[in-house]
Amino acid sequence: MALYSTSVEYGLHCLLPLCSPDVHASSQELAEFQGVSPAYLAKLFTTLKRAGLVEALEGAGGGYRLARAPADISVLDVIEALEGDKPLFQCNEIRGNCAVFGGKPPGWASKGLCSIHAVMLEAEQQMRTVLAGHTLADLAARLESKAPKAFPREVTAWFDARRTGRARSAAATRRINPGEK
Amino acid sequence: MALYSTSVEYGLHCLLPLCSPDVHASSQELAEFQGVSPAYLAKLFTTLKRAGLVEALEGAGGGYRLARAPADISVLDVIEALEGDKPLFQCNEIRGNCAVFGGKPPGWASKGLCSIHAVMLEAEQQMRTVLAGHTLADLAARLESKAPKAFPREVTAWFDARRTGRARSAAATRRINPGEK
Repeated sequence: MALYSTSVEYGLHCLLPLCSPDVHASSQELAEFQGVSPAYLAKLFTTLKRAGLVEALEGAGGGYRLARAPADISVLDVIEALEGDKPLFQCNEIRGNCAVFGGKPPGWASKGLCSIHAVMLEAEQQMRTVLAGHTLADLAARLESKAPKAFPREVTAWFDARRTGRARSAAATRRINPGEK
Repeated sequence: MALYSTSVEYGLHCLLPLCSPDVHASSQELAEFQGVSPAYLAKLFTTLKRAGLVEALEGAGGGYRLARAPADISVLDVIEALEGDKPLFQCNEIRGNCAVFGGKPPGWASKGLCSIHAVMLEAEQQMRTVLAGHTLADLAARLESKAPKAFPREVTAWFDARRTGRARSAAATRRINPGEK
């Protein structure tokens, strides 16, 4: 099994449209846009909001937007928000069990980090450095460099149409039930 | 949950005594030496043997020894033998689902690697480079640099005593049941 689950894949993909300052959207719309489960994505965006990576604009025309500039949100920020600080390796400190210690491990045996654990932490640190070195802005720029020039406009238009639909629907509801907000 | 399970921790710890050319041992003895489950370790050593990292010497005085020099067995070799090629991230290629494609993703959308997947693979590669850069010889040297000078001799003596006990026990069995080998 992979270290990071689909939450990271879904979260990162669904944050990308929000890198455009013209797009804010509900988690339902982002899920529809990327073809993923709306119920699952709603939970992920609640978590991303709690972690301070997105904020929710209230009202019929509202939705999620990034809470910081795309260049200030790293891939590692998103991973840690969604999955916490997942380690490569869980050290159970078995070095103290060595039979020659007879149940009483000497001080030197548990001094400092277990050397196996130290290698794993070094590998994990290198991995995290790469993940921290790529931002949502980098991912969005790479997508833009591959896509035709019209693609960002098409994306914005898709979300605009959904938002307009929502606003119209809310206005119609208010006409029918004037007491509702 | 961590990417690598206890099999990696147990495997690496139990391979360390075999870095000494004077030590070869059964998986039962290695498990007793490191205070881990003998049944679990027996399975791990069967896997390590299949992967060509250890070889088994037959007979009452036999046991496992490294199949290559400790400097030629990396931490990554042991991990891959025990757990296979575990990825950081499983890409489900959701980029083709984007709603603006209307179910017919254009060529550019699936050209090359998904940029999110590419970041994960870069992080994984850095992690693997670190794991490949440390060998059993390095781990054994680090342990030796921390331990008192007498420790390697104590370890060898512990395994010698077990092997002598095994040989005596086998000889006694042969005296009682001369037909057995």
